[in-house]
Amino acid sequence: MNMFPPGAIAVIFVNRRTGADEAGYQAAAAAMEAEAVRQPGYLGIHSVRAADGEGITISYWTHEEAAARWRAHAGHSKVREQGRADWYDHYHLIVAGIIRDHRWERGAQDR
Amino acid sequence: MNMFPPGAIAVIFVNRRTGADEAGYQAAAAAMEAEAVRQPGYLGIHSVRAADGEGITISYWTHEEAAARWRAHAGHSKVREQGRADWYDHYHLIVAGIIRDHRWERGAQDR
Repeated sequence: MNMFPPGAIAVIFVNRRTGADEAGYQAAAAAMEAEAVRQPGYLGIHSVRAADGEGITISYWTHEEAAARWRAHAGHSKVREQGRADWYDHYHLIVAGIIRDHRWERGAQDR
Repeated sequence: MNMFPPGAIAVIFVNRRTGADEAGYQAAAAAMEAEAVRQPGYLGIHSVRAADGEGITISYWTHEEAAARWRAHAGHSKVREQGRADWYDHYHLIVAGIIRDHRWERGAQDR
């Protein structure tokens, strides 16, 4: 993922899985990630889940309107409903405006 | 963690562990988390690591100055140096200003 343009948005989704319907959850998560990539203003995603069911997914968008459009996307809304019905024990959604970022890689020049 | 006050900052640290020195890494991570809690302006932390070594840690601060003070903290700086020497394969650090957030919990009223 390249550096973020000015005005870029991070949508942070911190959650814990119930453990129910793992196959359905995995299929929906993969479908949503593939669909997000096709949206205007999509910049990238970081997603990590620990063995205990705790997870953080961060999607990045060029600007707030792009993030809001993805929020209103019909397929995404439907999947969120199923998330509350079946998949998540709790979650915390945080929308934030990116101020700066910095990447480092072993063996590469600091950049 | 309660709702964030206006001006709150999220410091997002996306990283992959080398796998080297797991005991040293775990001890330093625990010590840094305990030290962060004692800093002025600390609001909380979310941290998840997957079995493959990919991790996301997000610390939350009341304002940019509090996050900058933590960045300049001597013990924290030393641990970051060791992180680049031994513990991390790569990382991406993103500083963002929180715009809004929303929590949901199974069985609780939506809030």
